[in-house]
Order: sequence, then C-alpha cells, then structure tokens
Amino acid sequence: MTTTPTAANNTAVPIDPIAIVRVSPQSALAEASAVTAKAPHVERYGLFEIALAGTADGNPYVDVDLSADFTSTATGETVTVGGFYRGNGDYAIRFMPLEEGEWRYVTHSAADPSLNAICGTLIADPAGENNHGRVLRATDVHRAAAEPETDPAGSELKFQFSYEDGTRYMPFGTTCYAWTSQSQAVQDQTVETLAAAPFNKIRMCVFPKFYDFNNADPDVFAYEGSMENGFDHTRFNEELFANLDRRIGQLCALGIEADIILLHPYDKPEWGFSKMSREADIMYLTYMARRYGAYRNVWWSLANEYDLMPQKSLEDWRTYARVVMANDAFGHLRSIHNCVTVYDYNEPWCTHCSIQRVDVTRTTECIADWRREYGKPVVCDEPGYEGNIYWGWGSLPATELMRRYWEGLMRCGTVTHGESFIDKGDQIWWAHGGTLHGETPARIAFMRGIFETAPRAASPLDADTAPEDVWSVNPVDVSQPLNGAMEKAMKFWDVPVLRAGTDWQLVYFGWYQQLYREFDLPAGGEYTVDVIDTWNMTIDRLPGTYTGTVRADLGGRQYMAVRIQRA
Amino acid sequence: MTTTPTAANNTAVPIDPIAIVRVSPQSALAEASAVTAKAPHVERYGLFEIALAGTADGNPYVDVDLSADFTSTATGETVTVGGFYRGNGDYAIRFMPLEEGEWRYVTHSAADPSLNAICGTLIADPAGENNHGRVLRATDVHRAAAEPETDPAGSELKFQFSYEDGTRYMPFGTTCYAWTSQSQAVQDQTVETLAAAPFNKIRMCVFPKFYDFNNADPDVFAYEGSMENGFDHTRFNEELFANLDRRIGQLCALGIEADIILLHPYDKPEWGFSKMSREADIMYLTYMARRYGAYRNVWWSLANEYDLMPQKSLEDWRTYARVVMANDAFGHLRSIHNCVTVYDYNEPWCTHCSIQRVDVTRTTECIADWRREYGKPVVCDEPGYEGNIYWGWGSLPATELMRRYWEGLMRCGTVTHGESFIDKGDQIWWAHGGTLHGETPARIAFMRGIFETAPRAASPLDADTAPEDVWSVNPVDVSQPLNGAMEKAMKFWDVPVLRAGTDWQLVYFGWYQQLYREFDLPAGGEYTVDVIDTWNMTIDRLPGTYTGTVRADLGGRQYMAVRIQRA
Repeated sequence: MTTTPTAANNTAVPIDPIAIVRVSPQSALAEASAVTAKAPHVERYGLFEIALAGTADGNPYVDVDLSADFTSTATGETVTVGGFYRGNGDYAIRFMPLEEGEWRYVTHSAADPSLNAICGTLIADPAGENNHGRVLRATDVHRAAAEPETDPAGSELKFQFSYEDGTRYMPFGTTCYAWTSQSQAVQDQTVETLAAAPFNKIRMCVFPKFYDFNNADPDVFAYEGSMENGFDHTRFNEELFANLDRRIGQLCALGIEADIILLHPYDKPEWGFSKMSREADIMYLTYMARRYGAYRNVWWSLANEYDLMPQKSLEDWRTYARVVMANDAFGHLRSIHNCVTVYDYNEPWCTHCSIQRVDVTRTTECIADWRREYGKPVVCDEPGYEGNIYWGWGSLPATELMRRYWEGLMRCGTVTHGESFIDKGDQIWWAHGGTLHGETPARIAFMRGIFETAPRAASPLDADTAPEDVWSVNPVDVSQPLNGAMEKAMKFWDVPVLRAGTDWQLVYFGWYQQLYREFDLPAGGEYTVDVIDTWNMTIDRLPGTYTGTVRADLGGRQYMAVRIQRA
Repeated sequence: MTTTPTAANNTAVPIDPIAIVRVSPQSALAEASAVTAKAPHVERYGLFEIALAGTADGNPYVDVDLSADFTSTATGETVTVGGFYRGNGDYAIRFMPLEEGEWRYVTHSAADPSLNAICGTLIADPAGENNHGRVLRATDVHRAAAEPETDPAGSELKFQFSYEDGTRYMPFGTTCYAWTSQSQAVQDQTVETLAAAPFNKIRMCVFPKFYDFNNADPDVFAYEGSMENGFDHTRFNEELFANLDRRIGQLCALGIEADIILLHPYDKPEWGFSKMSREADIMYLTYMARRYGAYRNVWWSLANEYDLMPQKSLEDWRTYARVVMANDAFGHLRSIHNCVTVYDYNEPWCTHCSIQRVDVTRTTECIADWRREYGKPVVCDEPGYEGNIYWGWGSLPATELMRRYWEGLMRCGTVTHGESFIDKGDQIWWAHGGTLHGETPARIAFMRGIFETAPRAASPLDADTAPEDVWSVNPVDVSQPLNGAMEKAMKFWDVPVLRAGTDWQLVYFGWYQQLYREFDLPAGGEYTVDVIDTWNMTIDRLPGTYTGTVRADLGGRQYMAVRIQRA
C-alpha cells in the first residue's frame, strides 16, 4: 500500500490525502499480485485504483469505453464501475470495497482491446480508525430501527445521516466555494485551517467562481483550451482533476465530507462553464461521478443556486441526477441548492434537502416546515454568513449566526457555516478559503459537543404531536380558561424544545434575556440540570439532582439553554 | 369654563385632565346660559357635559333611558348622544362638538320626566393648540387624496391614521394593562412617566388583571358588591368610572390616545368580569361607549386576547362591536387583539388591525402580509416587550425590540411598546405602570423624528409592484443571467426599503453589520445622504450632495439605516 499524492507536495502542509491503493495490472509487478496471496490490501471504504495504459489516439475521453466488474468472493455481489481517461494514454478505474474480504475484478472495453479483460484481486481489510465509510441517510444504515413499530426513535431517523458503519454523522459544514481554484499556497492554507476547525463537511465548486471579490481567472481550467480561443468541452485538463483528487483526499483524511457543487451560475462569459451544451454537461457529470465516486467522503450537489441558471430546465436537472446516479457506483448523497425558489426535494433522486433560506428573518426556524414538507434530512446550507460584506447573505454578527445554528439544530435540521469579512485580507473564506477570522467556529465546536451527545431519538416538541401530558417548560399557572390544545401549546410556545421521552431535554432561549425559568420534571424522575451559555461556551450544572419543578437562573443573558437529563 | 377633576387631586402630579365644560341646565344658573349670548363655550373636539338630576328610585342604570340631540345651527346636522347614570340621582350626557359654532340640544327621557325636554345651547370655539380632534383612518379624513386617480399617495393612505384636522398621527403606543387598577400614587407616577415618555397611545384595561405578578385585588371595582358576596352587574361603582374619567382626561391632556381594552381573559374567579352574561357585557359596553365616547382620545379594543375567552363566540364579538358603535356617537376607532388566532380584520366593524405577532421569530415583518390581507392600518400591538420575565413575550433586549420597531415601520405598520423587567421594583410597566427602566423609549423618540418627517406617500418597496427600473440599493453587478423579475428583486431583496418616488428613500439594515453599501441614485437627481445609527441615535450627513452612485460607510455596525433625499 503506497501513498501517491497526485500533485506536487511542495509546502509544509502536514495533511496527506487518504491513500490510493493503485495497481497497474498490465505490468509484471501487478500480474504477480493477481494471485490472492499477493493481492493488494486496501481498507474497507478505502480507495482502490486500477491504472491502465491504452490508446491515446483520437479523443479517448469520448471514444473509449471502460469499466470493471468487482465481485465479492464472500457474497457474490458484483459492483460495476465505470473507468475514466486522464490523458497521455492513461486510464483508471476506481473502486471502494463496501465489504471486507477478497474482491475479484475484470475490466471491459469494447473500444480498446488493451484495456479489456484484465483481471485481478484485492483484499479489503477492516476499516481503520476514523474510517466509518460513506455518509448515508440513517434510514439506509439502520433499516430495522427505521420501522416505527420496532423503535419509537425511527420517526426521527429519516431526518438523520449516519456513516455506513452506524456511527452518527451530523453535518457541521462550511463553505469555500472556489477554494480549489486558488493558488496552491492558499489551498494549502485552507487545508491547514480546516485541520483545526470544527467542520466535517465543505461546500465546494469544481468550476471557478465569478462574482464580487471573485474576479481573478484561475491558473488551471477543467478543459483543454484557453479563454482566448475557447475551451474544448470534450477534453478535460488532467491538472485540475489531479489537484481535485489530492484535495478531496486531504479532506477525507481530515474526516471532512466534500459536498461537490457540480454546476453553478457564477460564471464569466470567457469561461462559459455554466452554459455548456446538455451533451457537454452530461459528459462532465459522467466523468466526475466515475472519477470521484470511490472517495468515501463525496456528496453530490448538482448545482449551487440552480434557479439562477435559467438555461437549464427542471428536466435537465432530473436528467443530470440520473447521469450521476448511473455513473457513481457507490450511491453517494445527492441534492441541489436554491437561490430564491426552493427545489422540490420530494423528487426521489434527492437524498436530502440543501436549502438556502428564503425569508431573511425566519431562517433556520423553517427547518420545522421543511421536515414536514420533504420528510428527509434537512441541511440549511445558507442561513447567512458571519461577516461584513455589503450583502444581506454575508453580514451577520456571530451572535446572530449562532442563534440560527441553535434554532436549526433544536428543530433537528443542520446548518452550514460561511464567513465573508471583506476587510481581513485578500482571501474571503466563503469563496477562497484561507484563514478564518470569525467568532462562530469556536462556538460551533462547543455546540457539536452538546448535539452529538444528545440521544438520537431526541425530537423537537411540536404542538400538533406532543402528548396531552407533555411536561411544561414554563409551568406558571396562568389561571386562564383554555381549551386542551391551547393549554398544551402554552407549555412551550415561546421556545424550541428538543426532547427524548422523559430522559433528556434541551431548551434554547435565543434572543431572550430571561432572569430565570422554571421547568416541570416528569413525575417520579430525578434529574440533573445544566445551564448552558451558548455564547460564552459554559455549562454549569446546578448542584444535586431535582424532582418536581426546578428553577434555573439564566442571569438575564441572551443565548442561553438548559439541558435536563435523568440522573 | 371650569376644570372639574372628578377624583381627588391629592398629589403633586402636574397633569390636569382636559377640561370638561359641565352645565347643569336644571339650575337657575344654567337657565341663564340657555340664551346664546351666555351660552357656555367649549373647544371644538372638547368635552361638553350636561349634568342632570333625576330619579334615584329603582335601578336607574337599568330603568332610565336618557339621550340628547345636538344640532349644529350652521349645518343643521344633528348628533344624538346617549346619557348615563352615575349614582345618587346624577345623570350626564357628554358631547364632543365636531364643528365650530353654535349647537343646540334637547334631552329625551321617557322614564323620568325631570330629565326630558331640557334644552340648551353651547358654542364650539376653534380647537386649541395640541387639540387635533379624534384619530381616524386617514381615508376618512383625506377623502379626496384617498382616490388613487387624484393622488398617487392614496394607495398608502388606507394604511395610515390622521387626526381629524388632517394632522398626521402615527401610533407610538405603550402598554400598561392594569395601571388604573393600581393605587392612586402609582397611577400618578404613571402619568408623570408618560408626560416625559415618547408615547402617544396606551393600551389599558378597565377591569383588573389577574396573572403572574398581578395577584393583588384592586381597591375599587367596577360594580357594586364585593368579592365575598358577589358583584351586581347591573349597578356600576361610580368611584372606578370617575377615576377613569380623570385618567383618560389626563392622557388626553398629554396627547395620548387611550386604547381602552373593554374585556380580557386575565381574570380571577372571585372577580368574574371575563365571564359575565351576554346581557351584562352589553350593559357594560353601552355604558362605556356613552360615558367615554365624547373624549376625543378614546379608541376601543373589544378585547385583549379574545381567543383566550372561549366563553365568547365570534358572533358575540360582532354583537359587542355593534353595541359599541350604536352607543359611541363619535365613531372612535375599533379593533380587537389576539393571543394565538389572529382575528379576521376584514370584518367591517374593525377600523384597523391590532395584532399580536404569532410567530416568535418573524414578528413585525409580517406587517407586509397583514397589510395585503386586511387593507387597513396595521398596529402590531404585541411584538414582544423589553424585559427579563420568564416568558418569551417579555424578555427581549432593547436591541431586538428596536429592530422589530424598525422592521415594522419600514413596512408602514406601527408597533407598540411594552416593558417587563421583574427585578426593578414592585411595578412592572406592562401591567402596573409606574416608571420605565429600559433602553427603548429614548430610541423610540429618536425614530419618531425620522418617521414622522417622512413623506406620507412613502411606501415599502415590494418586488411584485416595484417598477422595472427601480433604483437599486445594491447596484453591484453580479453578472448573472437573470430574468427580469429576479433581477428586480435582487436590487433590494435583503433589506426593507421605504421610498417616495425619486425624492426620498430610507433603507434599514437590521441585524447586518455591513462595512459599507452602495446605492443607485435616480438619473439626473442630486441627493443628500444620511447615515443613521438607530441604536446610538446619531444621524451623520455625508458631506455635499451626490449623483449617480453613492457609497455609505456603515462602520460594520448593526442597526444602521441610510436616508437619501433629493437635495
């Protein structure tokens, strides 16, 4: 097993990409490994690559078909994976073993006999530490638990993600749209920053971005050609994709999901990548899915702000989703992101929602509505960013962005970070990467600790579905003649409450600066009470345990929360 | 003309109620004044009272009918006003002359001959300074201007109020639900506080309030009887109403509209005023409308949180509105206030909306929706209060309440103040009155200066109705291929904009902490630019005048606004 960085490692960045176990079965060395005893070993969910030499005549990107069937000796299951061309007569097929044990493969190419019928074997070893496989919808990982009759928590699972080994995954993503279009030095700095940041997902484009503060042409384009003479949309530029290999591999090593934005509208006329023909789009999407589908940390975002690309129809997007699904042998998560018009995430190809809030005031609170509407995991990928740019999407103080984080997570959706300070140097994190300047990352790290240790069955209290005897988060007797529904709603109308049965409860007070608050505790139970200052990042446990009713002093401060757990 | 305080003026409070010009035509003195030369004089929109002595037998509250016809000598118009009993054989009829000049009156009573056919005259002089008459819907005051074909500003008028002399009235109200149920000393203190505060309206109940921090029984009840032995809902207690006379008169002297909440749910079983019979309610409402209708500063709020009174049906409220309208000869403004279920303000008896925000996040921003839905002036009477009580309705920091004020007024609705600190002494302003402790009043005074000098024709920019060539509040070229509608929306999607043609514009940045912002100016125009810090209450005019495009530095601070006016 060797580590093969695919771009020059010319800086001090300590982050190596995940290993690619690369075999060249046409060479003598590789032939030796074709017997099981000498078969190459790769981690389960690791990246195995068959590197092949074939024709360089004509346009192999278009002319040469290539695939391989991988069959598990243990289960008999066969996975067919499409190959791709990388220029100079070099071809590759990438595979991620989803099961441990021996896999045998055989290649197929009708166009080039030298690429056809090459056989080999690999051994998938147990996954290493911090390798939990792909992120999937939790219902696809925990099938039994997703049945409400077997597990009452099942109703919440459909809004969650899991690594395929069952480990919980909650997206705490960030946004660096064009970071791989920056200089190598800036890209390295971005990786360094990410290594110390609390993020486990990143939204990133393949094509460069043209927009305010994003006027520079990239050094490397995805296609052969030039801005002056135009680009040949049938010939990819290996340099860009080799860099993308390395950067996605580094993200994988850091445990960061690469939410790859395949198309986007922020384009320059001389680039033109947002306005390619349908055929060119399909060729590009095919290439991306085949080349990157075997990275376990890849997600597909068909587009950023699809609705700013009127040149693509809704049927185009559905077709493009089918193209990705047909060429990604590993079924990664798929979504699409809006500007103004929220996409219909009920479409079956969408595994989850990737929503930009539309209302500038009621932002992540809408997660409650989106869950109801789509019944899928909800990621609010643009709730506004911390920064001071002259746009409403990027000029929030950290207090307000953190409030939106909390409001979103209290409703069992997730929220994505971005930063857009325009007075902190040349790089703006939201587009270029580089370094972080804001006050949110530390607080996101703090909140991860709280939510990642919450019971998975915790669900948001909802007036429609809460039981009649729901325990109140403000048991003050108002002595009003209320009907039952209103009486129930009065118990928690003013705050989001996350609750797992009678064992665990989290209440968030957001803007409010309450002096204190009283809480009902379920009859007979004994509880600990934590007063959480989400802004100052402190958790103060009240002394002892409590039964009946408990009063928590909140100090008249904003952004407080209270966690109550069975002792 | 004499000032006749109707309750003992036993403190140092310097606020005298407005004068009541009281005549007793049954006495020799009054008979002398029955000839025009000696007729009493009263200001136009002032308060004229005929005090009569009649039978005290039986239950005059129920048994004795009394009214008077007032006829303007100049116009021939006759206004019929119902009288009321005040105990001890004393009766009164109150009248507000809506026109200057001579008015003649004659009383009617079928039940008591001594109250019947009493004639007299009064002279209505021009209104004094600071007397602008009733507040009405602007369309009822500026009838011609309300026709869109004669005045393009007419479309905004239907959302506005005016004093009947044409002076603009924008409600900047506050809330002291039970202030007239407190001790005289606290009531006096409340009046003193109001005299120095920026409020021109107050929401106040007649009946006492029973709720958290409101457990004390009042000294005086509205009815004869007692908590022990029950109250007689057919006999009013003059002491309470005499105090109300005085307090409403003081408010009038201060230029404060009394938004009188006639019924409310926060009741104690031993009081029972929220659960009186329909007949008792109607008797009470009749009495209120007759006794207080001639005060020019009265508004009627049928109920606070009507939906917490399931004992009253919607048809009850409609009936109660008709009772008030039949007995208030002066057509004061009428509304009703919700807790959870917003009332249907399309009902014709509602002159305006008096809404409690329902969504705890998107509060005064909803004014845009309510304007569309009801087409009437919108007062958001409970957007949350400044304070630190343990309820979401009353624990906002001043920054957030002021943001809600600005978001509401930018949408051409109005917003009402309240304060609920529970650690600043015995009185909590929201219920008891007393003194103010918060940081909002000074900032409300500041914002009044800005909005009361705005052009009346200023209207909120709306993507649906804005012209295609609307001038942008962020003219940065995003180089995207957008359709026309989206391109228009992009010019002001992130901020509320209030604009009067090409002459005047106000933009509010709320939460945002933008470093600067650029603005298009209409072609050919020359403009001044003011940078407004709504929190720190400063207005900085940029030097000189501007054409084309102007950049305003906002300092990376929150709660900023920019005002652009034709030079």
